[in-house]
Order: sequence, then structure tokens, then C-alpha cells
Amino acid sequence: MDIYERALARHQETRGKIEIRSRMRLETQDDLSMAYTPGVARPCEEIAKDASRAWDLTWKGRTVGVVSDGSAVLGLGDIGPAASLPVMEGKAALFHEFAGLDAVPIVLDERDPQKIIDIVKAISPTYGGINLEDISAPRCFEIEDALQDIGIPVLHDDQHGTAIVLLAAVMNAARVLKTSLGNMSVVLNGAGAAGRAICNLLLCKDTSEACIPVGKMRVCDSKGVIWPGRPGNTPQKEEIAQLTNPEGEQGFLRDAIVGANVFIGVSRGGLLKAEDIKTMGKDPIVLAMANPVPEIMPDEALAGGAAIVGTGRSDFPNQVNNVLAFPGLFRGALEARALKFTTGMKFAAIQAITSCVEEPTPKRILPSPFDRSVAVRVAEEVAAAAVRNGVCFEPAK
Amino acid sequence: MDIYERALARHQETRGKIEIRSRMRLETQDDLSMAYTPGVARPCEEIAKDASRAWDLTWKGRTVGVVSDGSAVLGLGDIGPAASLPVMEGKAALFHEFAGLDAVPIVLDERDPQKIIDIVKAISPTYGGINLEDISAPRCFEIEDALQDIGIPVLHDDQHGTAIVLLAAVMNAARVLKTSLGNMSVVLNGAGAAGRAICNLLLCKDTSEACIPVGKMRVCDSKGVIWPGRPGNTPQKEEIAQLTNPEGEQGFLRDAIVGANVFIGVSRGGLLKAEDIKTMGKDPIVLAMANPVPEIMPDEALAGGAAIVGTGRSDFPNQVNNVLAFPGLFRGALEARALKFTTGMKFAAIQAITSCVEEPTPKRILPSPFDRSVAVRVAEEVAAAAVRNGVCFEPAK
Repeated sequence: MDIYERALARHQETRGKIEIRSRMRLETQDDLSMAYTPGVARPCEEIAKDASRAWDLTWKGRTVGVVSDGSAVLGLGDIGPAASLPVMEGKAALFHEFAGLDAVPIVLDERDPQKIIDIVKAISPTYGGINLEDISAPRCFEIEDALQDIGIPVLHDDQHGTAIVLLAAVMNAARVLKTSLGNMSVVLNGAGAAGRAICNLLLCKDTSEACIPVGKMRVCDSKGVIWPGRPGNTPQKEEIAQLTNPEGEQGFLRDAIVGANVFIGVSRGGLLKAEDIKTMGKDPIVLAMANPVPEIMPDEALAGGAAIVGTGRSDFPNQVNNVLAFPGLFRGALEARALKFTTGMKFAAIQAITSCVEEPTPKRILPSPFDRSVAVRVAEEVAAAAVRNGVCFEPAK
Repeated sequence: MDIYERALARHQETRGKIEIRSRMRLETQDDLSMAYTPGVARPCEEIAKDASRAWDLTWKGRTVGVVSDGSAVLGLGDIGPAASLPVMEGKAALFHEFAGLDAVPIVLDERDPQKIIDIVKAISPTYGGINLEDISAPRCFEIEDALQDIGIPVLHDDQHGTAIVLLAAVMNAARVLKTSLGNMSVVLNGAGAAGRAICNLLLCKDTSEACIPVGKMRVCDSKGVIWPGRPGNTPQKEEIAQLTNPEGEQGFLRDAIVGANVFIGVSRGGLLKAEDIKTMGKDPIVLAMANPVPEIMPDEALAGGAAIVGTGRSDFPNQVNNVLAFPGLFRGALEARALKFTTGMKFAAIQAITSCVEEPTPKRILPSPFDRSVAVRVAEEVAAAAVRNGVCFEPAK
């Protein structure tokens, strides 16, 4: 049986991937009186007096809501909420496995961004954080932006998880090549969910942390280089254009990568050939994330002269996998009782991931997705950054 | 330490009462490829083609969302969503313990009934059923009524769970006294969440099942007997008035219970004295549910001549406890893949509970809340009734 049929059989066998367990004994009348009425009144009253007590007395301090409308599921597209549930359960299982967190799926039969915002706000007292997942662009930007001040950290993983791991990959690639981001010219293909976040991190937007922006950056979509005022620009693309290409340079992807040091693809597969890589600058770095078929296959990129190649696939070296970021990001945020994710916390995660590879090499710029120490290190650094950034919940005086 | 301080210490120790566990191994690359990308695409596609597959391939078929806005928490009142979370976790733990279901709390920072309706509709693809909990009257009626056709069963436990167990108690009390409901005159004090449901069941409203309504029924609130056209009647009280008291009889609770066979209290404690019970008909049945102080203490009711007394308390005989109903109700509904709860399913639950006591006696009209066979029996009967009532989800052809 191939992987798909085996996956189906395994889902059928377990009837889903997560389950609830009780943490309190419920065998005797006394147990029941403590877990439920009348004893439960006491922790309720504590929280009513001091909201910060919810982190000690309920699951809130270890719980992440994984929210999706099923509109942009990786490799499947718009399959709707019910059909996206197996992905969200999988995400919840990964949160548990890699960060010891208790994550629950919430799939929404709703598409209006304002209504999704209202729903997430309304359910937020239940959780310590919210992971937005597989929500299509540009709605994902509006939704995530509007949820930054609801009192718990909200992160759209398709934007920031991907961007953080990619940045860590670029940074360690630069270490291998003994260069720095400030000297680099980067071409990013794809201006969807991940595109904006990658741009913002590479250009050190919204951060007061010490941060060196990349020397030059161009972003392409299916119509080529994005430039200010280009007809049909969404507000997000216009913002990207102004940030990366105030000169108004035009052209196709093939033109843009001439002389570039880094290619990052977060869009469709099969776009580039070895000849295209040959037009890039010295020692090109190629991070081709399209899944399952990358923008260029690793062998072909290497044949074109690429110095370092990464993909989203597990069957080639340098797998760029979100699982290196999101478990530790949320664990750190929850441990610090962070009210939100700051850019400083994202950079702390990047630094933690890069530091997990002591001596990066061309075939090993990232730690293995199965290295359990990564989430621990990321969590520590993210929690410290939350404290440094002053965004932690203060108990009532 | 008293029960409250011990409960607080135990909550602090466990940091909440429920947690998530993974049901699928996630140790190797192959495990990850089945639980998450790329293999997870296969169960997603199955559900996209046939929505009924969600019950086999995800947690949906065993999951209940426990939804509250924290506006009417038992014994605590309006404490808001965050402070009500320990109660909802407790409910989830009881679902797990008594029915093996996976229930998750969802506490809502929202009070507008229409918005709560919209939220529950939107999140409904995530769960196999929704237990509404501790939502204040009269909003709870509007919310529950509007959610009867969303495709999964929705039940406000404070209304129906309580009503079902009380009905089972009345029926077995009638067995002990060798009488039948048709001969009984009932006075119900309290027209809140539970009141309407008790009325409807006692009067066989909305059911085509064989059902004998009680002979006479009066409902009182803090202003006395509810009668049609009484100034200040809410729509729900007007409905109750028309159903129970078309004659327009007026008076106080003390007047209403003269000659009655059954008193059911679901309101405030300490309302009745032994002398009041003496005015009731022969062999009165007193079910005084106010918590922690019942409408009349059992000793005093017995001194007034009560033949059978029940309360909500665990330290007296005949504890009327919702845990006898809700675990089996939801388990049966989920096993049958019911689209909704019908009155027939509620009567099936009542019958199952009564039948769990083979030979009822004055001190044992209900099974023990710790009798694990009750939920199994209730689930079987409820599932059979769902099939009989034709309200089960049909797989795609």
C-alpha cells in the first residue's frame, strides 16, 4: 500500500489522532465533589478575582486552539472545514508530541473575515494561544492583524512558522558561505501567506532588535516582479512592492534572479531550470518550498551551480519544516504568559533554530525535524524575548 | 482543609482537569507522513467527498463541545467565561469518565444570543454534538431553539439533563407508590432553564411517543403561580402559563401546593416548611433541587409527611444528578450519528434511567450517580430512539 492508503487505514483504525484524557481522579464522591460541584466553585472564584489564575487552575496555560476554515489546505486548496479536520488534528498531535502542549482543532464553517475575527475573539478565554492554520490569503492577513490585541498570542503559522524556519535556513546558509544577509540579494517567488512574513523578517520590519536587513530583495508572483502601482495589486502586494521595490523595477522571475544570491520559492513547483540557476550570483542558495514538487528539483539546482539547496521534502537534505518553529514558539509564549507574539519573539525563534546546528554544512543548514531539543531551545528563547519585550500577562495586584 | 480548599489545591496541582493525548504514533518520518503531510491528504479527500466519513476518520464521532458564556454558573451566577472554565473542564472530565467521550470546553466572551448562535453554528463541523451549559434564561431558550437544525445534536443540559433525571425520579416514585403520572397533581417552583423542559416532558409536549401527561400541573416563580396574561410574563412564562394553567388560577406557592401530589423545586432554597408539606395530598413526593440548600431539608419534608424525598445533594438518599443523563444521551446520539435530539430520545433516556432501578423503594428511586451501567443503558436506548425517529445522518450515496 502506498503512503496515502496506509494513512487512510491508520486514520480509520484510530478514528482520528487526538483524544481527551482526565487529569483528575473521578472515582469517589469526594473526587466528584472536588472536580465538580460543589468544590469547583473555589477555583472559579479565584479566577473571577484574578484572571491570571486561569493559567494555574485550568488547561489554559498549556492549550492552543488550532483554528481553520479549510480554505487553503496545503496541497488540497479549498476543501472546507469538515474535510480539513484531519490536518488540524495532525497539527494538534504535533503540538503535543514536540512541545507537550494540549492543542485542539476548531474548524469553522464561516468565510467572512470579520466574522472569523469575532469568533476567535469570543472563544479566546478558553485557550492560552491561537494558531491560525490554512486560511487563504489575503483574508489571513486581515484576520491575523485584527487579533493581535485580544490578550492571548495569535499566530498564522503558514505565514510566520514558514518564514521563521526559512530565515533560519538562510542565516545558516550564510554562515556556511561565510557571508552575511546584508550582502545578499534575495528573490522570493510567491506573495501568498508566507510571502509577506518572509519579506518583513528579511527586511527587519517592525522590530527594535538589532537586525541587519538583506541588501536587496525582489518579490515575484505569477505575473512577475511586484512593483508599486502595478495594476491589480492587493493592499498586501502594494505594501510588499513599496517595501522591496521602491525603484519600480519590472520583469519576470527569470529576469529577477539574474545575479541574485538567494532564491526562495513558496508558490508553485517546476518553475526553474538549471540554466536559470546558472544566471544567479556566486554560490547561490536555493530554497524551493513548493510541495510536493519543488520550484526546482535539488539535483537540477545543484547541476545549475547551487551551493546550498533546501526543500520542504523529507527525502532530500535541508528539509525546511514548520515543526521546527511552531511548537517552541507557542510553548515559549505560553510559559511566559505572553499577550501576543512580537517580532522580537520571532527573531528569538530564528536564532534558537540556527544555534541548534553547531557547524552548519551545505547539506545540513537546519536541525532535523525530529530533534526534540529544538522546541525546548526555541521555547526558552521565545519566552525570554516575551519578557524582554514586556508583553507578558501581569497578575492582578 | 475543607472541600473548597482541597479542590483548589487539587486544581493547582493538576493545572486543570483535562488534557490532550495523541492516538497515533509520531516517532518516525513514516509516522509523520501518515499523520500529517503528505498522507493526511487522503482522509481529507474522503471527507470532502462524503461528509459522513468525518465520523470514522476524525475525532468528530466521539467529541462533544461544552459551550458556555459563564452567565449562569450553578451556585455562582454570572462569573463570565474565564472563571467558568473549571466547571466546563469538569463537565468534559465527566463526559470522559462516564461515557468515554472526548469533550472539550469552549467558553465564550459573548452575550448576544444571535452571535452565540452564529458562533456555535460556525464551530459545529468540529464536533459530533454540542452541550450548552450554564447559559442564563431566557437567552438559553432562544439559543438552543435556533440550533436544532445545524446538523449535529445540541442540548442545553441545565434544561433537559435536569428535566430527564427529575422525570425518571417522579416515575419511579410513582412506581413505589403504585400510582401513575396521569393521577398526579404537580407543582413546580422555578421557571428558569429547567422549568420549561420539565413542563414539556410532564405534559408530553412535542412527542408522538406513547406518553401519559400528568393530571394537573402548576408552575410558580418568585411572584407565585404563573397564569396567562400575568403582567411581566416573558414569552417562555406565557407559554408555560397557557400550557399548565389555561384556567388562570392565581395564588402563591403555598396555596398551589395544597392537595398536590408532587412538589418539584428548581429555584431557591428554604422556601417550604413541614406545615406546607402537611397541606399536600396523600403520600407527597418532594424533589427539592435547590443547591446547596434545598427548598426544604429532607428531615423536615419527612416530618411534614412526605412519602419520598429527593434532593441534588450527595449526602441524602435519592440524589437527582444530571450525570445520570448527559453522558448516555450524548453517547447514544453520537453512536447513532443523530442530527438532533428528539423528544423521543429524551423519553428513551428517562425510561433507561428508571429501568436501572429494578425495585425502587422510598430511599432509592434513582440509580447511584456512580453506577457506570446507567450511561451504557441510556446510550443504547437513546441511539435506538434516534433510529426510530429517523434523525440519523445518512452517508452520501
